[in-house]
Amino acid sequence: MSENKRGKHSFVLPRLPVITQWASVAGKKEKEGPLGYTFDIVSEDTYFGQKTWEQAEKQMQKLVLQKLMDKAGLQPDQIGLVFSGDLLNQCIGSSFTLRNTGIPHLGLYGACSTMAESLLLASMTVSGGFSDRVIAMTSSHFASSERQYRFPLGYGGQRTPTAQWTVTGSGAALVQSAGKGPRIECCTIGTVTDLGIKDANNMGCAMAPAAYATIRSHFDDFGRGPEDFDLIATGDLGQLGKEVLLELAKRDGVYLGGKLTDCGTLVFDNTKQDVHAGGSGCGCSAITLCGHLLNQVASGKRKRILFCGTGALLSPTSTQQGLPIPGVCHAVSIMGGES
Amino acid sequence: MSENKRGKHSFVLPRLPVITQWASVAGKKEKEGPLGYTFDIVSEDTYFGQKTWEQAEKQMQKLVLQKLMDKAGLQPDQIGLVFSGDLLNQCIGSSFTLRNTGIPHLGLYGACSTMAESLLLASMTVSGGFSDRVIAMTSSHFASSERQYRFPLGYGGQRTPTAQWTVTGSGAALVQSAGKGPRIECCTIGTVTDLGIKDANNMGCAMAPAAYATIRSHFDDFGRGPEDFDLIATGDLGQLGKEVLLELAKRDGVYLGGKLTDCGTLVFDNTKQDVHAGGSGCGCSAITLCGHLLNQVASGKRKRILFCGTGALLSPTSTQQGLPIPGVCHAVSIMGGES
Repeated sequence: MSENKRGKHSFVLPRLPVITQWASVAGKKEKEGPLGYTFDIVSEDTYFGQKTWEQAEKQMQKLVLQKLMDKAGLQPDQIGLVFSGDLLNQCIGSSFTLRNTGIPHLGLYGACSTMAESLLLASMTVSGGFSDRVIAMTSSHFASSERQYRFPLGYGGQRTPTAQWTVTGSGAALVQSAGKGPRIECCTIGTVTDLGIKDANNMGCAMAPAAYATIRSHFDDFGRGPEDFDLIATGDLGQLGKEVLLELAKRDGVYLGGKLTDCGTLVFDNTKQDVHAGGSGCGCSAITLCGHLLNQVASGKRKRILFCGTGALLSPTSTQQGLPIPGVCHAVSIMGGES
Repeated sequence: MSENKRGKHSFVLPRLPVITQWASVAGKKEKEGPLGYTFDIVSEDTYFGQKTWEQAEKQMQKLVLQKLMDKAGLQPDQIGLVFSGDLLNQCIGSSFTLRNTGIPHLGLYGACSTMAESLLLASMTVSGGFSDRVIAMTSSHFASSERQYRFPLGYGGQRTPTAQWTVTGSGAALVQSAGKGPRIECCTIGTVTDLGIKDANNMGCAMAPAAYATIRSHFDDFGRGPEDFDLIATGDLGQLGKEVLLELAKRDGVYLGGKLTDCGTLVFDNTKQDVHAGGSGCGCSAITLCGHLLNQVASGKRKRILFCGTGALLSPTSTQQGLPIPGVCHAVSIMGGES
């Protein structure tokens, strides 16, 4: 029966779903970064016109959802389903965005892997014939994340050199059964991997083993290697996590060097923007994919990329209880060309 | 292309997935309730041998996952995927359960609708041929929920008459492409519905409009009515929410009375157990489904049931910011018979 299953952790999509549109919303700091020119909407106001940062995050998702529907020329009642999630406790960014829109919604929690997780599930839903138009969406906000996971901003806590900067941004992609655009050909679902890293200010290193496990599974399940991709883009390992991933691969006999990039190292210019180890958050891989990366695939500059969303599955409670930081990574293989 | 889509919010499963096994773990209070005899594992210790209540919740999921695999005679490497989520911030009950098991995992956040959401996605994955053996799982714990959403237990806060009692329990179901057991025939995905209820101690009423919206969509999309089911079982509306749902349906010309039950009213005996408006939490519908309800379908006592998981998508932060409580409900139609 499971004719689309490949290997232990992967599946193919017999009818390749198409990413027909994508959109992104970002903050001021992200606009000043190297990818600033790719974002659809930028706000100078960190509150996005709202009263609280949590509401600002909801507002970013509302803006990106509306922008995506505008670009695609669709009304809410033409959307079959939205898969979305975020970092806020109980994912209130996502649920308050969707409320009373009439759009069916399935909520996800994959921490910073949510863009890949939602894209993977959207592609499964469309390829399986369960819906025609599915949106994958996520967000993060620097200020709502800092106060929830670390300290209130007013406290002025010092950041360690290994810390990453949560991206203020939201990205969304429309997956359809037909149309023009990058196509999703296969996916690898991650396992929760924990090598015992406990430093909540070094999440890139905590997530790197999960990233390697998933990339390795993808290679094994499809008989592939780095040479089969123009680019392997991890979610938000940042500079340190990326180095750990390269080292883990090297010890396993895999040379990722020429192909690996990380959204956390692309989104900010660390020589000018002082973000320490790089960008992070659900929004990091979301705005990098739903702009820069998909633009490159659509223009033919990249023929096939492996988008690997990475998530650190910790909570302040698990950290306070002395537990390590499990990581997860989901991989989506995206090809150029039209269907 | 979307040959399995039906109406606006629903889809059919062309190859009916089978729920081949199910398992449940519960606490002492749940054992003393009317469904006590149906649980696979019961612990008198609210900590389940762990040091904290959050770890106890993780332990319940570990126990139910192991019990389910034992009942099915499967090893972890034979499981294709686990869809799971819980109420703890960042869903640490689920991610810490799956860590280092090697089982692919996709995390969900659907509040108390998670059992239905995970079952719906598992059925889609299996019917689409993406995996052969998928587990749907969730949990909740009275003590971890109280201190996260309301007050520390030691504070001794008074509960309002409209409050519900979070079930301490975890349920899991194994969905396969073939085998003996209840079959999933079709599903309806919920929309986030908010009629402005702001009382976080009256979640049943906040969720009732979402429950009716989904049940109504299911009827419309499939040309069905209450007469097509032996039972319509909502997740955890409790006594008050169930009455609101009956009233909403009645005003719309639909008489649910003879068919409607609610897991929150089944799991405790309110004449003896003083749980006010009934049970709640992800575990409420999970242990009621993965025991009582599936046993009834498997034994032939019920031929077709509509399992409607309901979730209140609030957070303490959204409540503190004066926002209302959006609700969601996902419906899974389960039939008796063998495939």
